[in-house]
This record gives sequence, C-alpha cells and structure tokens, in this order.
Amino acid sequence: MTTVVAYAAPAAKAPLERTTIERREVREHDVLIDIKFAGICHSDIHQAREGWGKAIFPMVPGHEIAGIVAEVGSGVTKFKVGDRVGVGCLVDSCRECDNCEAGLEQYCTGGGVGTYNAVGKDGEPTYGGYSQKIVVDENYTLRIPDGISLDVAAPLLCAGITTYSPLKHWNAGPGKKVAVLGMGGLGHMGVKIAHALGAEVTVLSQSLRKKDDGLKLGADHYYATSDPETFKELRGTFDLILSTVSAPLDLDAYLALLRTDGAFVNVGAPEEPVRLNLFSVIGGRKTLAGSGIGGIRETQEMLDFCAAHGFGAEIELIGASEINEAYERVLASDVRYRFVIDAATIQ
Amino acid sequence: MTTVVAYAAPAAKAPLERTTIERREVREHDVLIDIKFAGICHSDIHQAREGWGKAIFPMVPGHEIAGIVAEVGSGVTKFKVGDRVGVGCLVDSCRECDNCEAGLEQYCTGGGVGTYNAVGKDGEPTYGGYSQKIVVDENYTLRIPDGISLDVAAPLLCAGITTYSPLKHWNAGPGKKVAVLGMGGLGHMGVKIAHALGAEVTVLSQSLRKKDDGLKLGADHYYATSDPETFKELRGTFDLILSTVSAPLDLDAYLALLRTDGAFVNVGAPEEPVRLNLFSVIGGRKTLAGSGIGGIRETQEMLDFCAAHGFGAEIELIGASEINEAYERVLASDVRYRFVIDAATIQ
Repeated sequence: MTTVVAYAAPAAKAPLERTTIERREVREHDVLIDIKFAGICHSDIHQAREGWGKAIFPMVPGHEIAGIVAEVGSGVTKFKVGDRVGVGCLVDSCRECDNCEAGLEQYCTGGGVGTYNAVGKDGEPTYGGYSQKIVVDENYTLRIPDGISLDVAAPLLCAGITTYSPLKHWNAGPGKKVAVLGMGGLGHMGVKIAHALGAEVTVLSQSLRKKDDGLKLGADHYYATSDPETFKELRGTFDLILSTVSAPLDLDAYLALLRTDGAFVNVGAPEEPVRLNLFSVIGGRKTLAGSGIGGIRETQEMLDFCAAHGFGAEIELIGASEINEAYERVLASDVRYRFVIDAATIQ
Repeated sequence: MTTVVAYAAPAAKAPLERTTIERREVREHDVLIDIKFAGICHSDIHQAREGWGKAIFPMVPGHEIAGIVAEVGSGVTKFKVGDRVGVGCLVDSCRECDNCEAGLEQYCTGGGVGTYNAVGKDGEPTYGGYSQKIVVDENYTLRIPDGISLDVAAPLLCAGITTYSPLKHWNAGPGKKVAVLGMGGLGHMGVKIAHALGAEVTVLSQSLRKKDDGLKLGADHYYATSDPETFKELRGTFDLILSTVSAPLDLDAYLALLRTDGAFVNVGAPEEPVRLNLFSVIGGRKTLAGSGIGGIRETQEMLDFCAAHGFGAEIELIGASEINEAYERVLASDVRYRFVIDAATIQ
C-alpha cells in the first residue's frame, strides 16, 4: 500500500479537505500513475453532495485524470514507465457481459466499477483523481496522444467522451444539424467535437453571454433559450439535440425543435424526474434518449480524434486549495469551461 | 353534394346519434366509396370527448374504413368502380413538404388533413367512416387485397398501420425480442404483425385474462404487469417495447425492461403528461420514442403484408345502434379486439 495525499469530502455536502488515502500495491496488470491534472466535473459535485443518491465517504472525486506512468505490473503489455496516460469514469467492469464484450463497458450489466464513489472487486472503495497517484488496471487506462497536452486532455476523459459517444452514435456529421444545449464543460466539448465531425452546429444557451466563445469553438449559430423567439424560429430544425444540461427543462419545447425522426439525447443528469407529453414524440416519430460516457475503445478513439484535430478542452487551471470555490463557481456556471486541478498542488 | 346517413357526436361527450351529412361531388381525382365497414378506434372516443383538446362538432368519427368504389372522377387512374378499397386516418396532406415527398404524409409539416375532426383544403370539415359513403382523393385511398375480407381489413387502416410502421422502423424481426404492451385493438395487431415479422413476441398485459388469445395470435410469452415479479424477471430483456397503452404508465419501470440500446416506442396517446427519470435512458443508451400511424405507401405495404400472411384484425361486428355501448366497452377494455360497424345498419 502507498499512502498518497488527496482532497476528499468527509461527508455529504461537507467542503473538501486535504487528507491521505491508501493506494493498492501494483498488481500484475496494474499501472501506477503519477497524476498531473484532474478535471472537475459537475458530476463530482452531484455525488459529493449526494444529489444522485447515497454515496460513499470519505469521497475523493475526480474521473478526468491525466498523468504519467510511474510503475507497471509484471503482466502489463500496453504501457511502460513514462507513458502519457489518462483515466476516465471507469476503472473496471465485469469483462464478460454482452456490453463488455462489445466495448460498451459503460453499460456493463455485471457490475462496472466507477473511478470513485464505488467499490472495487477487491471490496475496497475507489478513490478518484483529486490525489497524487492512482493505481489502475491497464485495460481501463487510456493513452494520451503526443499532440495534446495533459492539462487540456484531462477533461476529455469525461466531458470529451460523454459528448463524442452520442454525437457518433446519432450520426452527427456533414449535412446534419446538431444543437448543443448548454455551453458549459460538456457543452463546449460538444461544440468542438460536433464541428470537427462536420455537422452544422447551433448552441442553445440560456443567454448570449458566451456567444463569441461558442462561435470561436466551432458553432455556426448561437441562440438564447431565454428568448421565446428562439423556439419559434428554430421549430422543426434539428436532427439531433445534445442536451448537456442537468437543470429541469421544458422537454416538450425542445422536442418541438427537432425534425421528423430527430433525437433529443440527454447526457446531463438531472436530480429530479422530468415531465413530457408523449404527443411530443409521436408527432414526427421523435426520440428522447440518453447516453452515458463511452466505452474504453471509444474513449481511446475520441482521444485520438481530438489530438488529430488539434484540440483539448478549454480550461482554467487551479490549485487544490481552490476546489471548494471552484465547485461554487461550477454551480453558478462561472467557468470557461472546465476547472482542472494542477496535481502538483496536492501535497 | 350527396346527402348520406351518418352517426355523429353532436357535441363533446354527447352520445352519438343518427344524422345526415353532405358528401362533396366527386372531383377529378376523387373516388366515391360505398362504405361497408368502419372500425371503432380508441382515438374516436378520445376525440369525440375532447380528451385530446378542442374538437369540431358535429363529429362523425371513423378512420378505419373499408368499402367498394362506386364512382370515380375523370382523372382517376388508380381505381375503378367495384374495387375493394380502404381509407385510414389521412385524406389529404400538403404533398410538397419533405415528409410528404418521403412518403411520410403522417408527419406532413404543411398541413395534413385528418379523415374526421379536421378541415379540408376546401375549408369544409371532414367527416369519418361512421356513414354510408365517403369521397376521398385517390392518392389517399388504399387497395384492399383480395386475400382479406373487408370487415377484418377495416381496422388495419389504423390499428394495423400504427403498429406495423414502428415495428418495421425499429427493426422487429428474427433475433429480436419485442414486447407488446397492452392487448387491445392496437396491441393484438402488434402481436400478429411482430410475430409475422419473425420477432420473439412477449405480451405485457395488465392481467393474464387474454393469455390464451395472445398465444394463439402469435405471442411466445405472456406476462401480467400487475405482478411485480414480471418487472424483476424481464429486466433488461427487450430490444423493443411497443406501447399501445394510453393510460398513465410508470415509464421508468418499463425502460428498465429494455436491453442496452433498446427502444420504448409509444403509439398509445395519453391525455396527461408522463414523468420519467432521465437516468432511465442514460443507463443503457435507451430510447423513448413515439410513432403515429404511417404514410400512404407504407399503409399499402402493410395491407399487402397482412394479406400475404392471411390475417386481418380480430373483430366484433356491431350495428350502428350499438356504437355508444361499444364506446363504453372499449373504455372498459371489454372487446376482443376491435368493434367494427356493419355500415349496412347505417340507414
């Protein structure tokens, strides 16, 4: 066991504080990673505050991890010491169910293991990226291509794959009109990726405050959802709306913005149930769907795609002492566009 | 103009009564149809009682019409006097929008015209099938193949196409597990069609009361949704759930019965909004979708498919004087499985 410094929430809704945790010894197929950067995802806050239900404390959040391999187990074939690597939302899965076999480990039916707020197959709680080091099975470790620096790569491990996977699955590309709902950590990645995939991209954001950024990141159009005219003008427009919003939405109003056979795909994760009128999907044979992160192979594909297109996330780098303040700013949508913790400050 | 006898609701929620209506003169592309049979669809009741919003009265319901061509306009090329024909839910559409061009007239964005409770392009209200005759444009008239009698063909024009279209669109077929939710007018057709398409079919019905019928019509399995064990046993089972139910449902419970990438497709049309937890679609990348009837070409395809497989609907033939009683029995789910009015009794 190795004792490492980490930042943890000691209990639900309590501020995060410096602590130490134990990382397991490196097993045959494990890699030990010196964490360099860890992104702050909105879901870290949901979980640390038990917004999605009962959680495990102390909790070390963080599933957007970039670092350098410091040690490898005797059976490791995919990585060597010094490699640039990432860890996302999953550190294990059953490896046997249909979904695992299909590379859809995120939908593992045999018991996937989250990077934090979960219990590993060894019965020990998992701790995330707000720490100095992490030990992860090589099969759940990603390679970060040379073309992308580690700080802007970190958020790709959740925000990148969470938007890439549904954009690919619902065929965002040339000739398709894609709306990205919400211009935050997920949304800004959705804009970059949908644009890089060749789609015509519209941002639907509460206000026009971030319009310049949106257009710079690749959006073709930018509308404020606080303006009722938006819903009149864009009626029947989109093939795909990717919703990154976790606040309650008037789903019927958004479904009306879809074309026939269009899909509204939710990757934001509201704490409360939503309401809709089923006529909103019957007329125009529309789809309301959801998508959660992505599988390991697809996450690697996404990292390679982003590197090939020369982009990572837009980030604000912070020190570990600023985590609690950053949480408040995320909740106030006051970040452009992802906080990333410089792990050198975790000490 | 031709005066014909019809059964109409004079006002919302009023019982239907005998009356007379005017049918337009046969225009260049019109056919005059002697109605032989008209099915009673649950949506006739929704509309006659204004369950779906403000309606037009007097209302002659009926969009499951089978009859014989009695006269054709000078420009008609598709039909001749004596042909066996049907009319479904649509008697016109804009014929110009993308959906009309694609044969998806049911999703016409330029103004489709319903068979009743609508206003035609000539500004006149449309009246449905509970009448002696109807005049319809040949392009919205279907051919009923010889292999199927008119009485059991009538319900195919709505109940048949409403289930056929989504079953085809969501790829029901060999190797697919399809559940049909609700064993009524739509549901029993869903079972027949899904079975004929080669899918493994499960009926999810409130009770096991109609189990023998379900198995006879082609279901492989039959479960009661009133039994909580059903939801445990069938968790993660289906590729497709076709919901024909218009009563409020616990959508989250049904979405849990889908496999990864499965779809819950609603063709029932509830009067009230539904609630769901978006996590129910995020986990397993699931789809909640809707589908409304079908286009003209696809309706013809469905009629040909049913005839080729040698089936129509299961019906109870009634006289016009029994319509109001039949409505009550539909609402009580007391019909096996579609009431069809013998139009010879409309006089």
